[in-house]
Amino acid sequence: MRLISTLLLLLLISLAYSSATPTRRSRKSTRIHKPCKTLVFYFHDIIYNGHNSKNATAAIVGAPAWGNHTILANKNHFGNLVVFDDPITLDNNLHSHPIGRAQGFYIYDRKEIFTAWLGFSFVFNSTQHKGTINFAGADPLMNKTRDISVIGGTGDFFMTRGVATLSTDAFEGEVYFRLRAEINLYECW
Amino acid sequence: MRLISTLLLLLLISLAYSSATPTRRSRKSTRIHKPCKTLVFYFHDIIYNGHNSKNATAAIVGAPAWGNHTILANKNHFGNLVVFDDPITLDNNLHSHPIGRAQGFYIYDRKEIFTAWLGFSFVFNSTQHKGTINFAGADPLMNKTRDISVIGGTGDFFMTRGVATLSTDAFEGEVYFRLRAEINLYECW
Amino acid sequence: MRLISTLLLLLLISLAYSSATPTRRSRKSTRIHKPCKTLVFYFHDIIYNGHNSKNATAAIVGAPAWGNHTILANKNHFGNLVVFDDPITLDNNLHSHPIGRAQGFYIYDRKEIFTAWLGFSFVFNSTQHKGTINFAGADPLMNKTRDISVIGGTGDFFMTRGVATLSTDAFEGEVYFRLRAEINLYECW
Repeated sequence: MRLISTLLLLLLISLAYSSATPTRRSRKSTRIHKPCKTLVFYFHDIIYNGHNSKNATAAIVGAPAWGNHTILANKNHFGNLVVFDDPITLDNNLHSHPIGRAQGFYIYDRKEIFTAWLGFSFVFNSTQHKGTINFAGADPLMNKTRDISVIGGTGDFFMTRGVATLSTDAFEGEVYFRLRAEINLYECW
Repeated sequence: MRLISTLLLLLLISLAYSSATPTRRSRKSTRIHKPCKTLVFYFHDIIYNGHNSKNATAAIVGAPAWGNHTILANKNHFGNLVVFDDPITLDNNLHSHPIGRAQGFYIYDRKEIFTAWLGFSFVFNSTQHKGTINFAGADPLMNKTRDISVIGGTGDFFMTRGVATLSTDAFEGEVYFRLRAEINLYECW
Repeated sequence: MRLISTLLLLLLISLAYSSATPTRRSRKSTRIHKPCKTLVFYFHDIIYNGHNSKNATAAIVGAPAWGNHTILANKNHFGNLVVFDDPITLDNNLHSHPIGRAQGFYIYDRKEIFTAWLGFSFVFNSTQHKGTINFAGADPLMNKTRDISVIGGTGDFFMTRGVATLSTDAFEGEVYFRLRAEINLYECW
């Protein structure tokens, strides 16, 4: 009987120990990761060009020495900083009911090719979603798909992390761009 | 024998229990999360307006085609990029001893309402705190409270993540803003 | 007795097993953390100054009211926003074969001293590395070393997090800067 109670005690200690053990997330994992959540949205960017102030959702607010704030600069727009507040829709129709806003900036950052750096948020306040998803990363626009990081979130997306795959779904001249974002979240709280 | 089988049963339960313990963070959790650390600070933003170069802690450095770098633009300052280096205090008094600096930028990103996107750091080098906390996210200024992401940290805040709740504690005209930041960290290393 | 020793064995296995189980990351850990990956790179920043458009890898695109886009402003460049697309090399030679590009922006954010805020990516597409590493944080340039956050990654650096230690390896006037980046990743997937 004494042995058995000792054993029982050990068992309890083992239980207590296991629930208190810290863990290394820093270990290289070889398995294929499955997202805990996948979302697909479209957002619609209309850059102000001097003639479309009513419809414009974005504006040039920084430019290199050889540029201005009404027309995207030459050298692949290198140095243009654009602020945006774009409607987010569930399908690819600009006129669909927006379920949120994509808000932030991009900055063209290469002379030889179109490429940009993005910092922005998806801001939701609808019946479907409340909260924000925050993004940052390089956007090499000429690639069919580009991966950027989901660096955090709030509300329904509290503390989330993941990867968003962007693709240019459509564009018209240098004024209208439609982006498709497939968001794969790998940390859901 | 009956005791031993009971014990064996307990052991199996314990095994099952431990393998179900916390674990993969990619699973949707329903419990309420408790921060591993909570901090409250105030920071004080004084925007340069052409007459206050001595006291100013912030300056307009980007503007839309219809704006300039001395006065915040109309259309709810859409397109204004502001750089700041604001003192951080423990209470809401601008003249209290600063325990760090809030450094980074915000960018007004909507025509219809005051809202901004923030990228900045709290930089500490005092007896209380050494290191940095990095933030990014949408700041819909007209909301009483706004949640942004803590996307990383260094020094005392090595590898941290969390959510910061901002509120506008006071403002004077369009020159002085005082923000309260309640920082809740959910990943502490 | 044999049953009991079997039980004891099972218990030990259970202990070993449970200590390998993952767990809450939100608990303060006191052990020293070891990176899951360490990388060292150099990147080379040549700011456009009106005379070097061929070699320039960076350009001023934002400035305070007292500045312009060709020369870094006085007051320690406070308010200058610089976009860059810098070659990344494995050694400190500007002319070594670039194995990637450092793309993004920095913004001088203090009147009293040189200090900046950084948002950028390392973009790799070589045999050594494919994917991106995303960074954000304060860069107090006068410090010998400065820590910024690795806020995410894609491709080979999927979902990574960590800390990058920057140091100014060399500079010439206010045109050429060479930075050394030691990247320590603490979350590798």
